[in-house]
Amino acid sequence: MRAVVARSGQLICEEIAEPQPGPGQVLVKTLSCGICGSDLHALHHFDRMMDSTRRSGGVAPAFDPKAGMVFGHEFSAEVLDYGPGGPARLKPGTRVVSMPILIGPAGMIAVGYSNDYPGGFAERMVLSDALLLEVPNGLSDRQAAMTEPFAVGAHAVAKAALDEDAAFLVVGCGPVGLAVIASLKARGFGPVAAADYSPARRAMAERMGADLIIDPAKESPHTRWTDMGVAATGAEQMMARMAGQTPRRAIIFECVGVPGVLQALIEGCPPGSQIVVAGVCMQADQIEPAMAITKQLDFRFVFGYAPEEFAGTLSDIAEGRIDVAPVITSAVGLDGVAGAFTALADPEAQVKIVVEPGLG
Amino acid sequence: MRAVVARSGQLICEEIAEPQPGPGQVLVKTLSCGICGSDLHALHHFDRMMDSTRRSGGVAPAFDPKAGMVFGHEFSAEVLDYGPGGPARLKPGTRVVSMPILIGPAGMIAVGYSNDYPGGFAERMVLSDALLLEVPNGLSDRQAAMTEPFAVGAHAVAKAALDEDAAFLVVGCGPVGLAVIASLKARGFGPVAAADYSPARRAMAERMGADLIIDPAKESPHTRWTDMGVAATGAEQMMARMAGQTPRRAIIFECVGVPGVLQALIEGCPPGSQIVVAGVCMQADQIEPAMAITKQLDFRFVFGYAPEEFAGTLSDIAEGRIDVAPVITSAVGLDGVAGAFTALADPEAQVKIVVEPGLG
Repeated sequence: MRAVVARSGQLICEEIAEPQPGPGQVLVKTLSCGICGSDLHALHHFDRMMDSTRRSGGVAPAFDPKAGMVFGHEFSAEVLDYGPGGPARLKPGTRVVSMPILIGPAGMIAVGYSNDYPGGFAERMVLSDALLLEVPNGLSDRQAAMTEPFAVGAHAVAKAALDEDAAFLVVGCGPVGLAVIASLKARGFGPVAAADYSPARRAMAERMGADLIIDPAKESPHTRWTDMGVAATGAEQMMARMAGQTPRRAIIFECVGVPGVLQALIEGCPPGSQIVVAGVCMQADQIEPAMAITKQLDFRFVFGYAPEEFAGTLSDIAEGRIDVAPVITSAVGLDGVAGAFTALADPEAQVKIVVEPGLG
Repeated sequence: MRAVVARSGQLICEEIAEPQPGPGQVLVKTLSCGICGSDLHALHHFDRMMDSTRRSGGVAPAFDPKAGMVFGHEFSAEVLDYGPGGPARLKPGTRVVSMPILIGPAGMIAVGYSNDYPGGFAERMVLSDALLLEVPNGLSDRQAAMTEPFAVGAHAVAKAALDEDAAFLVVGCGPVGLAVIASLKARGFGPVAAADYSPARRAMAERMGADLIIDPAKESPHTRWTDMGVAATGAEQMMARMAGQTPRRAIIFECVGVPGVLQALIEGCPPGSQIVVAGVCMQADQIEPAMAITKQLDFRFVFGYAPEEFAGTLSDIAEGRIDVAPVITSAVGLDGVAGAFTALADPEAQVKIVVEPGLG
């Protein structure tokens, strides 16, 4: 079958062996699969990602950089066939999504980051029957493929302490930031301010429902807290409490992931802020802990999602609580993947590009 | 009256003007007053502390380094006289403690860090009538003076998310770490492991009730999680969940406050740990956010205490739930303060030194 193989920093469209489903596994045809920022990073720095995972005590896959791998973990697919042991839960022809995990005899494999099993930038994949979720009627292949990236936003929101009256700032309106905005609004939370240097991404944040759009080149994102009912300084907080008021708490989602953003937030945010860190910064970063202490800040570093958050996101999309259509800015066939990786470097041009093997 | 004045990095015992209580204020005689790590830092770096406070949006006092100041914010005292407006709540002779805050016409002043009002390293102070708490019968002046530093531990524990089955590691057994251990044990939480390079401080941690004592020169503090019922790696956590078990959550108190400790904790701690940062690191520090994200860590930077935590700590000490006596390793008169600051550099020799003007 045809697949886009990442090998030695290059993406090459070639013929690879057909994947074989084992017991409890299902052969599927890839319908649509988003390109994730992690794929861009992994193309050149997969060893560094695995090193970080290993040093974090996680189970990093044994990985041969020369053997190559087929990326793609944000997919929708169609059931084709079953592994040994007979028919699985869902009939051939059923359209499905799945968390990108393959349960095998040797444990769990990350679909899209494995030498042994291809991800969604291939004509076919093997998935786990137990993890398949049927795509509800009417949802397009492309929209269904957005379940995974939007589940990342749902998880970040679920990890925040939302049990009180809060106001929100989303810093960085790439796919993660947009998913956070969508999840907050789908749950009725707000006001939500969104900040990004890119005009196109600010426009996208507005389409996802952000209430207040900030260009950080023109003004600090922290000048707008008062507009959102947050007492922005210790003095303002004390005066509000003395007046018997309960000012809103600031909850900030860091969705950028480059060095310096954390300290800029520590310095600019209101005392008592909660900062949910969803942007994956792969370099070392410098902070001033004394300032975080004086302000009594709360940091929640978040990653991935739980199975119920993944399923909940599919429902949110299927039932119209989240409109993912605006973020899908382009679709390419397997031949277009290498070019799409390059195009994603420009935030003005693209947000999410989907790969559809059916496009040729 | 006699006082120890900090001026240009020196501590000099000299005569200063008698403080004058205003309306709502009370003149007190200092009975006992602990030396805090912040005092040691402020002697040489007060300008840096204030700069950090100002950049954090806090209200830093206008400060003249040449005018000098009298430190001391961990005190017990005796009521002597009232300001204009007549008798206050408590009679002369009443022994009291207070949060080190003076409420005046110009707002709040930090007692012990002010050019205008002396702290506890002086024969007499002015305090706010509204904040005075009577020392319950039988509690010694010295024990009562420990209310403030132990309230810092109570606050750190109160800020942790303790609503589930947890195991605890206290890193650094100086006064803050010891106060955290005491507060955890007073509330019935455990098991509590305590780590410190100093044998004397490890012994002190044991006296405060720590269940497991770790010498980080001999073993990583993170080798003992399994002994405390915590699944220490992602793989162990997954296996425990698959077996229907709920492993304990790791809650770590960082009570050291020097660069490098945060990253060592990020690297060594179990996934999903909560890290309460109570050690005040005044320098910039480097972390690897990707690792904190992979492990989904939760950081709570904490500072000070609330009035009810201060009052609760006085009760804990008075009613025997916390025994502060072991941490008081020495007492000096005003003439001994400069020497005591030097002695506190050696963790083997001293934990908490109290200053008692009555000792001469």
